[in-house]
Amino acid sequence: MIEDVIGDVIARWHRYLGGDLPGGLGELLADDVVFYSPVVYTPQRGRAVTRQYLEAASRTLVGGSGGAFRYTKEVLAGDTAVLEFETSVEGRYVNGVDIIRCGDDGRIVEFRVMMRPLQGIQAVHEQMGRLLASGG
Amino acid sequence: MIEDVIGDVIARWHRYLGGDLPGGLGELLADDVVFYSPVVYTPQRGRAVTRQYLEAASRTLVGGSGGAFRYTKEVLAGDTAVLEFETSVEGRYVNGVDIIRCGDDGRIVEFRVMMRPLQGIQAVHEQMGRLLASGG
Repeated sequence: MIEDVIGDVIARWHRYLGGDLPGGLGELLADDVVFYSPVVYTPQRGRAVTRQYLEAASRTLVGGSGGAFRYTKEVLAGDTAVLEFETSVEGRYVNGVDIIRCGDDGRIVEFRVMMRPLQGIQAVHEQMGRLLASGG
Repeated sequence: MIEDVIGDVIARWHRYLGGDLPGGLGELLADDVVFYSPVVYTPQRGRAVTRQYLEAASRTLVGGSGGAFRYTKEVLAGDTAVLEFETSVEGRYVNGVDIIRCGDDGRIVEFRVMMRPLQGIQAVHEQMGRLLASGG
């Protein structure tokens, strides 16, 4: 059942964020995964660029939050999971969703992030811009 | 089953957006519903203010889109539904989610909206600001 597939993907995603996924983020992503940024219109295509964005996002939203990051809702159905989170970036409250769609082989084919409120998005935008510009 | 309750709420939400819900939006909302704006941090509490925001949002995102508005994903589980949409506001592409949680009685207790990308949020912010300021 595809529900079991998405459930397994999300379990591995949580292990990745906890620093406990053998093989790391790469093995979770399909070759042709597409990342949809909360800030930028243009979809980012492929495993390499998606990995770069997700690593910068996890450093900003999780690592940089002083322990504030937590998932607050988990809605799974079919091939799709929506994980709602709350965190703090540079003192700004951030509430967001990861919308994750997977293929039958248990790899992520689409990763979409949206956030609120506007001041929180702007804090994340600035922080991630610095990380990506520094190659970090 | 609570899944049937949220499914029924979403069916009625679609009827509201189609202009075909007898009793209108008011009967869908709990007295103490909370609306979480994509732009503003502060939660908006109660049926009257939530109704005002949702009516302005539907005029901006649906009515003002020249027919571009469409739901692209529907993820329902437990008491929660996530509806992803695409639309166009003042020529800007907008991709967003309605995150809707309901009580056992089939009324919405929480309505949360997030959007991307940044230019789309800004277009919606300006348009809704004009509507709410004019009392419309």
